[in-house]
Amino acid sequence: MTSELATDSAERRRRGEAVFSDVMTVPSALDASPYRDAGLLDFVFPEVWARPGLSRRDRRWITLACVGAADTVAPIEAHVYAALRSGDMTFEQMQEFVLHFAVYCGWPKASFLDEVVWRQQSRVAAERGEPGPDGRPWDVWSAGMDPETRISNGEQCFAAVNCVPYPGRTTAYRTAGILNFVFGEVWQRPGLTTRDRRFITLACVGLDDTVGPIRSHFYSALKSGDVTIDEMRELILHFAVYSGFAKAEFLDEVVSESWAGIQRGAAEAAR
Amino acid sequence: MTSELATDSAERRRRGEAVFSDVMTVPSALDASPYRDAGLLDFVFPEVWARPGLSRRDRRWITLACVGAADTVAPIEAHVYAALRSGDMTFEQMQEFVLHFAVYCGWPKASFLDEVVWRQQSRVAAERGEPGPDGRPWDVWSAGMDPETRISNGEQCFAAVNCVPYPGRTTAYRTAGILNFVFGEVWQRPGLTTRDRRFITLACVGLDDTVGPIRSHFYSALKSGDVTIDEMRELILHFAVYSGFAKAEFLDEVVSESWAGIQRGAAEAAR
Amino acid sequence: MTSELATDSAERRRRGEAVFSDVMTVPSALDASPYRDAGLLDFVFPEVWARPGLSRRDRRWITLACVGAADTVAPIEAHVYAALRSGDMTFEQMQEFVLHFAVYCGWPKASFLDEVVWRQQSRVAAERGEPGPDGRPWDVWSAGMDPETRISNGEQCFAAVNCVPYPGRTTAYRTAGILNFVFGEVWQRPGLTTRDRRFITLACVGLDDTVGPIRSHFYSALKSGDVTIDEMRELILHFAVYSGFAKAEFLDEVVSESWAGIQRGAAEAAR
Repeated sequence: MTSELATDSAERRRRGEAVFSDVMTVPSALDASPYRDAGLLDFVFPEVWARPGLSRRDRRWITLACVGAADTVAPIEAHVYAALRSGDMTFEQMQEFVLHFAVYCGWPKASFLDEVVWRQQSRVAAERGEPGPDGRPWDVWSAGMDPETRISNGEQCFAAVNCVPYPGRTTAYRTAGILNFVFGEVWQRPGLTTRDRRFITLACVGLDDTVGPIRSHFYSALKSGDVTIDEMRELILHFAVYSGFAKAEFLDEVVSESWAGIQRGAAEAAR
Repeated sequence: MTSELATDSAERRRRGEAVFSDVMTVPSALDASPYRDAGLLDFVFPEVWARPGLSRRDRRWITLACVGAADTVAPIEAHVYAALRSGDMTFEQMQEFVLHFAVYCGWPKASFLDEVVWRQQSRVAAERGEPGPDGRPWDVWSAGMDPETRISNGEQCFAAVNCVPYPGRTTAYRTAGILNFVFGEVWQRPGLTTRDRRFITLACVGLDDTVGPIRSHFYSALKSGDVTIDEMRELILHFAVYSGFAKAEFLDEVVSESWAGIQRGAAEAAR
Repeated sequence: MTSELATDSAERRRRGEAVFSDVMTVPSALDASPYRDAGLLDFVFPEVWARPGLSRRDRRWITLACVGAADTVAPIEAHVYAALRSGDMTFEQMQEFVLHFAVYCGWPKASFLDEVVWRQQSRVAAERGEPGPDGRPWDVWSAGMDPETRISNGEQCFAAVNCVPYPGRTTAYRTAGILNFVFGEVWQRPGLTTRDRRFITLACVGLDDTVGPIRSHFYSALKSGDVTIDEMRELILHFAVYSGFAKAEFLDEVVSESWAGIQRGAAEAAR
């Protein structure tokens, strides 16, 4: 990895400026400060966003979840705008992202994202001379709306995503929440792939600090093959940048443990 | 307010120990430290929990949301145990709390609460020589499960809770999320009163830092009359203790603004 | 700043390992991963901790607040241990830190820190062949315990710290909370300097995301002269590393605005 680093400070800064423009779709224009110079332009853009191993679009999911959770207006607006303007994400995909994020980081934080997605789509459309998003009602997604069917579907979806059997219908949280809505509806909605949803979820559970969901989602993302171990390692570095090295350290530990367990299991199965 | 404060240090400490035992249902037993002594025993218990203006049960909802969001194992376990052991909350009410909390602070944080509620109920039951919680399936709440009916119900419930008309069905977040699930189901479930749900929600949106939901929920809690202005002021002090004075300061501002607006509106209407 | 960067990848890594050992008081021993290699050893230690402009002890306060808020066990334990073992902080100072942190980030997160400080002090003492911390009661801090005196002292302390007059005694949050306890007691306690408390507070309000307290504390830290503009810029980069570039961007904006305002004020006063 170290061989990819710029060995000249001026070159490193130039690369930082170039990667910033590529990712953000506008040139960097913050006041000079260590945060911007030593941080963003010398490290975050040239040495994290520029790394191979994850696509720019994969990195955007992680970033969008992290800035959405951090509540800071300017980064949320800038990253939503860049996601839409670059064409990496469609308006419809961004809307599904907001719903998925709402589940994992709570509806209040998602409500601001919902507004920003709409406004930035209007802005991008105006720049392109296209009509902005219209106010037509969003279709109700009705799959499995019979209660029992929906919860059964939720159980199957839970098992497929988590690589373990569904939990019993023993609590309100599990029955009305997890099975009925989170897996009975959200994870099954069209518009995002399961892999997209995994990237968003991994960032969100990392943000939430809760040991159980971190362990289960990092394990199942690897176990399912939706995210490779090398991609996962990149995800953690990217997450560290946007949500802090403190939270990321636990993710790095969990991934090492999960991966060791998965490899042990595979070795035993091969015997 | 100041007249209620102890004027003698030893008396203040004694009162702190007594209120701690009453609230936590066990004696205080931490090692000596400024956190425990100057903090918990000289301030949090004798000068916040002991204040009039909110019931102990009201204060528990705020506390449970705050400790749930803070992710720290020992306080979550201690406060869930105390809520159940004191009889202030039933097992069923605590389960509804977990579901409501999941919506506002995200499912990952709620999943740990869900486990803790179950374990602490088992512990309390064992202490009482009663059978623990059984694993019978939780009933599916089927009201309004026809998609259109459910969303229409959600619109009405949204308007009743928020004291403003429902937002358009224009985004996935609003349609599939807010109308279909949050107000189409969660707020309408039996087990908790609307006032209970408001206390939980007010703490959760305060935790989430998002300006829009804070403004709308603090306004509507006052406007609806479910929470009086004096209760709201107590809520903010209590919240400050458990989630930090920094977050609470904004709540204090918002309540002043909301209340001024509501009074202006009432004065105009009276003319 | 760029001239201080290593221009050779191997040298950069070596420097990273050396700074890691110096700061953490133990050699780096994590599994290889982008998080550890491209992140910690090539950036966080050689290019942030090694920067001039803040002392290692100043950087520790920021780090301790950030890891405390991030709830991740291993970094909390490692940084508390390193703070004590290095001699940069005494046990008493760390205890005051926990109390101050409790006020700004809430008691639940602080309770875990309180435990960790005690355990790591025992560990450091055992390594040195010294007796561990004893369980004697912590002295009651009794200054201003007459309620009115206490609140008056709180008003004076509030004005001195915030560089603006105290707010009216108009709400429970302000009277029983801010004036009675936060400024009537915590900020006045011996054990930490005002500058120490500012570093801790700046990190905590940054973590809390609330606009008002961020603006007021960053302004007053600069206005008072307790933290210089260059130190403040370093603080933000350091904060970005441990709590994410997303939150830090807003701090960088606020500092630019505050500093411009302070300079304008000084220029006008000089005319």
